Amino acid sequence: MLELIAKKRAGKALNVEEIRFFVRGICDGTIPDEQTAAFLMAVCFVGMEPEETAALTMEMANSGDVMDLSALQARTVDKHSTGGVGDKTTLILAPIVAALGGKMIKMSGRGLGHTGGTIDKLEAIPGFQTTLSANRMIEIGKKVGAVVVGQSGDLAPADKKLYALRDGTGTVQSIPLIASSIMSKKIAAGCSDILLDVKVGSGAFMKETSDALELAKEMVAIGRQVNRSVWAILTGMEQPLGNAIGNALEVNEALEVLKGGGPEDLRCVILALATRLVLLSLPERYKQDEKRAEADVKRVLSDNSALEKCKEMVIAQGGDPSFVTEGLPLSNVTTALLAEEDGYLSSLDGETCGFASALLGAGRMKKGESIDHGAGILLAKKVGDRVKKGDLLATLYASDEKHLADGMAHLRRAYAFSSSPVIPEKLLFYSVSPQGDVREI
Amino acid sequence: MLELIAKKRAGKALNVEEIRFFVRGICDGTIPDEQTAAFLMAVCFVGMEPEETAALTMEMANSGDVMDLSALQARTVDKHSTGGVGDKTTLILAPIVAALGGKMIKMSGRGLGHTGGTIDKLEAIPGFQTTLSANRMIEIGKKVGAVVVGQSGDLAPADKKLYALRDGTGTVQSIPLIASSIMSKKIAAGCSDILLDVKVGSGAFMKETSDALELAKEMVAIGRQVNRSVWAILTGMEQPLGNAIGNALEVNEALEVLKGGGPEDLRCVILALATRLVLLSLPERYKQDEKRAEADVKRVLSDNSALEKCKEMVIAQGGDPSFVTEGLPLSNVTTALLAEEDGYLSSLDGETCGFASALLGAGRMKKGESIDHGAGILLAKKVGDRVKKGDLLATLYASDEKHLADGMAHLRRAYAFSSSPVIPEKLLFYSVSPQGDVREI
Repeated sequence: MLELIAKKRAGKALNVEEIRFFVRGICDGTIPDEQTAAFLMAVCFVGMEPEETAALTMEMANSGDVMDLSALQARTVDKHSTGGVGDKTTLILAPIVAALGGKMIKMSGRGLGHTGGTIDKLEAIPGFQTTLSANRMIEIGKKVGAVVVGQSGDLAPADKKLYALRDGTGTVQSIPLIASSIMSKKIAAGCSDILLDVKVGSGAFMKETSDALELAKEMVAIGRQVNRSVWAILTGMEQPLGNAIGNALEVNEALEVLKGGGPEDLRCVILALATRLVLLSLPERYKQDEKRAEADVKRVLSDNSALEKCKEMVIAQGGDPSFVTEGLPLSNVTTALLAEEDGYLSSLDGETCGFASALLGAGRMKKGESIDHGAGILLAKKVGDRVKKGDLLATLYASDEKHLADGMAHLRRAYAFSSSPVIPEKLLFYSVSPQGDVREI
Repeated sequence: MLELIAKKRAGKALNVEEIRFFVRGICDGTIPDEQTAAFLMAVCFVGMEPEETAALTMEMANSGDVMDLSALQARTVDKHSTGGVGDKTTLILAPIVAALGGKMIKMSGRGLGHTGGTIDKLEAIPGFQTTLSANRMIEIGKKVGAVVVGQSGDLAPADKKLYALRDGTGTVQSIPLIASSIMSKKIAAGCSDILLDVKVGSGAFMKETSDALELAKEMVAIGRQVNRSVWAILTGMEQPLGNAIGNALEVNEALEVLKGGGPEDLRCVILALATRLVLLSLPERYKQDEKRAEADVKRVLSDNSALEKCKEMVIAQGGDPSFVTEGLPLSNVTTALLAEEDGYLSSLDGETCGFASALLGAGRMKKGESIDHGAGILLAKKVGDRVKKGDLLATLYASDEKHLADGMAHLRRAYAFSSSPVIPEKLLFYSVSPQGDVREI
């Protein structure tokens, strides 16, 4: 290991055997943490070569269970977001893909801190099962085309150990380490094609477009190295996506989009993501024709076929589909946040909104805590909107006054106003195709 | 600690309070090794500011016992060599300084692997005590002016911990870390002024003159920051210094120099070092007059006054002074290494000679092993010398045939010959004065 550290410190690339030695040593504990930490810090300074990053990704992916979706006998597509507040896109994208005949088989996570989790959102639907056997997943995949479950098995344990160590040693921020961490989990989850939603902005892990683009290119490059089609889209995260934050609230907003409506920003991101998912999923049918794919996505959102797929998926996973028409119930202690002066909403901090929502009961501060599915925030104004004193800024939902007061006190801090008009930040930045072509979108 | 890592990773300097937090955390174990390792690797890439290195030095120096030599009521000078083979300079320098009225109070170490240790060499003198009470050291310092003892007490424990971690994480090679490690121990040893013999060449820790000069400048700069006069001299270590390798052999060679003779290369290095030690030790008398200091050094070597001081020091430390006239006895199983062909001796690897000497019994491979004081190597030819087939290259001394054979087999590998004349590498490179002036010497 000392040789590997010296090699990396000197700016050289490790070969596949050396990367394997490293990953196995992390897993079996033969490499002490301090050596791994020194190596990781050297990587932060000198980076990794594409072949090296790919080798690290594959070794980490193969360090534990790997989902086998071959029984589906079809391309399967997965989607990953680098994380944001109000991101309910999976609930909408899986039905869209399935409605057009593709297969989206996705493992999602739970929320922690200010970020929500897709699995928590789905569990707001009565009866919905997020733990399924592999056979049942394949079965639903074949029949419905859309499955979303929680992570099961021991996926990429090397990444878990490495991530914990990075978190504890100030070595999280390294493009090849972030890229290989994300990609190893996605590859272990078994899909053939992957769409990456790389969030950029004050509310995202990547604050700068240049960093986010570098990460996107790195992950697409890993895909080419390991024979996966990977498409990355850079989308803005300067404020929460859509108007709903909180589990039932977000499911209801997802339904609006599936019914052809929904907030403009959310629809815009959905169209960009769904179009690429469809191109990845059904390459024979669309042959890279983005316009045709986008038109079909719009069609399944307006003719209720995506909504029907959502219903099918919910039923297949044991959920009660009545919410599709009625919407999920919300917590019944509510209050309104009102504007205290005239002006323009100039910023709405996503992280603060996320924490406020968690304080209302919609999230958890520690792993394993239970959550209040009906709690959350419904935004009435977004950045750029003109507001007058007394206008409704947001409605807050909680189960009791205590949670409501905590959430309200926190949410206020998310807002900033300006006396002059404000133009909201861009929502779509770049697309990085599986071939590595970078295009502004 | 994560904040400190992030700060260093971003290339920023830590302030004194942060360095203190770091060093204390290392000592009391509150900072886990993996965080320290990540921090150290970041230092390897971005370095440290002079104030920062000085703060690290002082915090490490003050992390354990600090020798108090104030009772001597005089400037005290220490000398440190970054390590080489055949380096018996301390045995000669301490008597020279004392003979001119200065005070050299030095803590030295034991040998390990290919390097010999001054304390082992002194212990070749029957009765010589290398462990003295602080009071006794002060007493001898006052009366004789020269004291050389082994390290006692718990000097700079933070440095010990940090060095062990650096050794295990590939973060040894960093100029500010090396400089602060050396300087912290010297400062804890209590002297007011320090002469550093920075070895450069294939047989030294620093292979390149540029690196050695950088280290020298860094240590002199630390001295200025912490109010110690520190002078550094860069001397060559392409081959062993002098002709003797092994404890009694080296004491005998030191005596030759103290009697006005000895090998040319050793005398040359001694003059360069002793002149600066005297300037540091007696600034009022010499007022930076190098020529005068050098003339006085030459005088005490030719008029036997340094030899007398050596005798006084040996007697004061409990040793039998009869060796001064007779020389120390050598191990009695000997053999000669002869040249196998005509040519010029083109290289003589110091590390290999050192290991050969250790194999003969003069050194130890593990801490705590006993050694054979009479074993070692007496070189008859040095780099640049013309040799004819059958010429004596070296005489080997051991206590039995087994040791002799092991040492002989290893020593052969140290030699390389050339058919054309060879000019030996330089012996003296640069001087870095306490004011930071760099001068070729």
